Amino acid sequence: MKKILFATTALVASAGVAAADVSFSGYGRFGAIDIDAGLNPAFDASGIYTRIRLQIDMTMEADNGLEFGARLRHQATSVNGAGYGGGFNGARFFARAGGFELGVGNIIGAIENMPGLYMGTQSAGIGLSGHTFSNLVTNTTSKGNFNWDAYSSGGAGADGVEVMYSAGDFSAHISYSDSPSGLVPAPFNVQQRVAAHVAYTFNDWTVALGYQDSDALVCALNNTYTGAFAPLTGPGCEDKALITVGGTVGPADLSLAYADNDGIGKWGLYANVEVGAATRVDAFVTSEEGVFGGETYGIGVSHNLGGGASLEAGFAKDDTVLDITTMDLGIRFNF
Amino acid sequence: MKKILFATTALVASAGVAAADVSFSGYGRFGAIDIDAGLNPAFDASGIYTRIRLQIDMTMEADNGLEFGARLRHQATSVNGAGYGGGFNGARFFARAGGFELGVGNIIGAIENMPGLYMGTQSAGIGLSGHTFSNLVTNTTSKGNFNWDAYSSGGAGADGVEVMYSAGDFSAHISYSDSPSGLVPAPFNVQQRVAAHVAYTFNDWTVALGYQDSDALVCALNNTYTGAFAPLTGPGCEDKALITVGGTVGPADLSLAYADNDGIGKWGLYANVEVGAATRVDAFVTSEEGVFGGETYGIGVSHNLGGGASLEAGFAKDDTVLDITTMDLGIRFNF
Amino acid sequence: MKKILFATTALVASAGVAAADVSFSGYGRFGAIDIDAGLNPAFDASGIYTRIRLQIDMTMEADNGLEFGARLRHQATSVNGAGYGGGFNGARFFARAGGFELGVGNIIGAIENMPGLYMGTQSAGIGLSGHTFSNLVTNTTSKGNFNWDAYSSGGAGADGVEVMYSAGDFSAHISYSDSPSGLVPAPFNVQQRVAAHVAYTFNDWTVALGYQDSDALVCALNNTYTGAFAPLTGPGCEDKALITVGGTVGPADLSLAYADNDGIGKWGLYANVEVGAATRVDAFVTSEEGVFGGETYGIGVSHNLGGGASLEAGFAKDDTVLDITTMDLGIRFNF
Repeated sequence: MKKILFATTALVASAGVAAADVSFSGYGRFGAIDIDAGLNPAFDASGIYTRIRLQIDMTMEADNGLEFGARLRHQATSVNGAGYGGGFNGARFFARAGGFELGVGNIIGAIENMPGLYMGTQSAGIGLSGHTFSNLVTNTTSKGNFNWDAYSSGGAGADGVEVMYSAGDFSAHISYSDSPSGLVPAPFNVQQRVAAHVAYTFNDWTVALGYQDSDALVCALNNTYTGAFAPLTGPGCEDKALITVGGTVGPADLSLAYADNDGIGKWGLYANVEVGAATRVDAFVTSEEGVFGGETYGIGVSHNLGGGASLEAGFAKDDTVLDITTMDLGIRFNF
Repeated sequence: MKKILFATTALVASAGVAAADVSFSGYGRFGAIDIDAGLNPAFDASGIYTRIRLQIDMTMEADNGLEFGARLRHQATSVNGAGYGGGFNGARFFARAGGFELGVGNIIGAIENMPGLYMGTQSAGIGLSGHTFSNLVTNTTSKGNFNWDAYSSGGAGADGVEVMYSAGDFSAHISYSDSPSGLVPAPFNVQQRVAAHVAYTFNDWTVALGYQDSDALVCALNNTYTGAFAPLTGPGCEDKALITVGGTVGPADLSLAYADNDGIGKWGLYANVEVGAATRVDAFVTSEEGVFGGETYGIGVSHNLGGGASLEAGFAKDDTVLDITTMDLGIRFNF
Repeated sequence: MKKILFATTALVASAGVAAADVSFSGYGRFGAIDIDAGLNPAFDASGIYTRIRLQIDMTMEADNGLEFGARLRHQATSVNGAGYGGGFNGARFFARAGGFELGVGNIIGAIENMPGLYMGTQSAGIGLSGHTFSNLVTNTTSKGNFNWDAYSSGGAGADGVEVMYSAGDFSAHISYSDSPSGLVPAPFNVQQRVAAHVAYTFNDWTVALGYQDSDALVCALNNTYTGAFAPLTGPGCEDKALITVGGTVGPADLSLAYADNDGIGKWGLYANVEVGAATRVDAFVTSEEGVFGGETYGIGVSHNLGGGASLEAGFAKDDTVLDITTMDLGIRFNF
């Protein structure tokens, strides 16, 4: 016999139904992808792209109004037959009260959670899959990429601590982690990261400032489409300062971002434009300083099918020394 | 606090409750098994048999009536203490409209899904566990077994594409996959499978025709009760053509099947007979051509306990060169 | 879209809603821990402690009133960044009728399930994490620890069989397993365990007697805070006989336990005292005979936050030759 969970907004809103909840949500994506890995042809790929994300939120409320909870995720991404299977990631635990939230474990991270860093699209980048996420001003060919604390979908995550606060138009986020790095042998492998951001919304515009200080000795270029590439890393290579500004102009959401990645500047410009009743065009362009740097750009189309489903297509080009071209097309659906 | 999911047929049927669902279903089996592995005594086993299957169906409906979804499964089978644990399998994604369904990822496969291939029992074979599934006319000692695309309960599956169509008494299914084979070193390991079946129901009788074309170079005999055995495989060894006919005569369901497995013919005869208010006897016999071939047969009893539970017992004998004898007994319950 | 499972006591109690259920429950813990591993400083640790437990109970009822079901668990415990991730454990299957229950697979075990063995605290030991569980009279420095069958949260478990019976104030439990031991090479590695307990409640006092007979040849000291330590093990080292007595005196729950662990006696005294409207103090002391033995003791505080959440703090000292000191502090919440 099948048991069906269904949306229960009305019931949960009614008083006293339950002090504890387990809720399930997530999304699926399926379609086709083509990757021309440029500098490293061994990473060329073409074929079926799929991802499943199933998220379990376990929450409860104590008598004093404090809310406690944890989030688990199962995620599997496949590019042409690789990457399936597995169990759950590390949990993020939280305690919440008023505008404050304390997070422990697989934390979200202050850089990861900063307004204006990711694009306001279903993939948080371009198209169905987000491609190489060269749209992020904190991902650079010179100084490595994804080298900040972020909620890990498949692994343990940072095992850190974070405090988030919001009040009206203001929000702030500080995170800390102290994890061994897989890149450096012990006992030199301890990697402390402190990150913070503040954000403020003026009318329809949000400005955010972010910062990361890390004592990592080596920074990886862990771009899955890139393979081995030796960037200009070294002590302090994860240090970052960044600013983003984003707002709405008529049918368009526009956003500008700039990051100083340990001396390597990168800026990005982003736009999401409604071009029809159910169709939106997304585009970005970035420019990274330095001998390995250069421009990256991308364009995507999202057609809303209603009920949480959409048709997504994207093209992106990384014109840095990596020289990666990616295209994808497919369906995304939420549940 | 416990959260309980309960059957919600009535609520879900009511209009507008939800566009997206996550549902849980599955079964448990527990009992005893005895395996005399004949040719390969190292695979003899005797003791506790258990299996848990937990299935998660995540579905939603777009505005145009298109249904999108994905299925994940956790399954663990134990024969005397082996095979427990683990996470989820690869997901199967689908889009459905009218009688059409497109499947992507861990596909079901056109041979696997063909009417009359498996038996109409809880195990799809004989008894509690299905034993060695020597009842399938597509499993042969000479040409390997389970060498077609099928929804994988524990692994990634085929990462393929399939289209299913049904209209009234007619149904058809085409599947395609292009996966590396673990049996052959690169670059010769790419294994393309195309399979199809059509089925038609005349009164109480269903006739189905199936076909598989594969460019696999080597075919495994991946029977878990068999161990290493070198069948007569080689290029084309996975090619198959098969026909099944099944229907009802009084208290009995009868079925006949024949497959040409790359030149090795195998036929099978199957019966499920109601012998009391809650008791059914199941039986099969097959015969495979060739020097490694021979007869296999089995008999089982299923006693319905109501509510989705049953007592299951089975005996099967593989009288090919493999010479395997298996018995089992236990409980199956659905949830 | 999110689907929310909520408490449905009322609905499930109503007749005929469903014959089959899938329910989710569990808890989270997060806080800080400090371990001074004494004899083996390599196991010293200090930092964040987290645990998530998500439990899935799948049950159904047959027409004759027999209840069948299975339990799966995902659990991940992290001490300063280790131990995250993974899938499900081995399932425990059961059939229940009247006061009888048959369990198969990852069984609970008669010693594990004995009243008075564990403390009546959220961790079943002291504080947030239970520390080293030196409070158990069946864990000894001389004869190894946790060497009895118990429901495994992360692994396959014992793959055994057990029968539980209760009628009024009386309960009994017999368990059997026959598993290979990882400590001894084949063919000497088969380890049979038979265990049993009986318990009876007189007014507010419960007396329980337990027994285990095992043919294990070597017994591990698998204390995760200890590392390698060679105890006085050998054939029969898992044999145990134990007695517990527990009851209530005013605001205090008191309990006394004694075990003969293959000739090594260990006794324990336990108290849980309500010291305020929402605060309870827990304490224990144990004493183990022999050259490796000695005293262990601990004290904890539990402050109830309501709704299933509590603040937990604990200190424990193992004054045997192991010389371990542990402290922890944090939040526990149920869902």
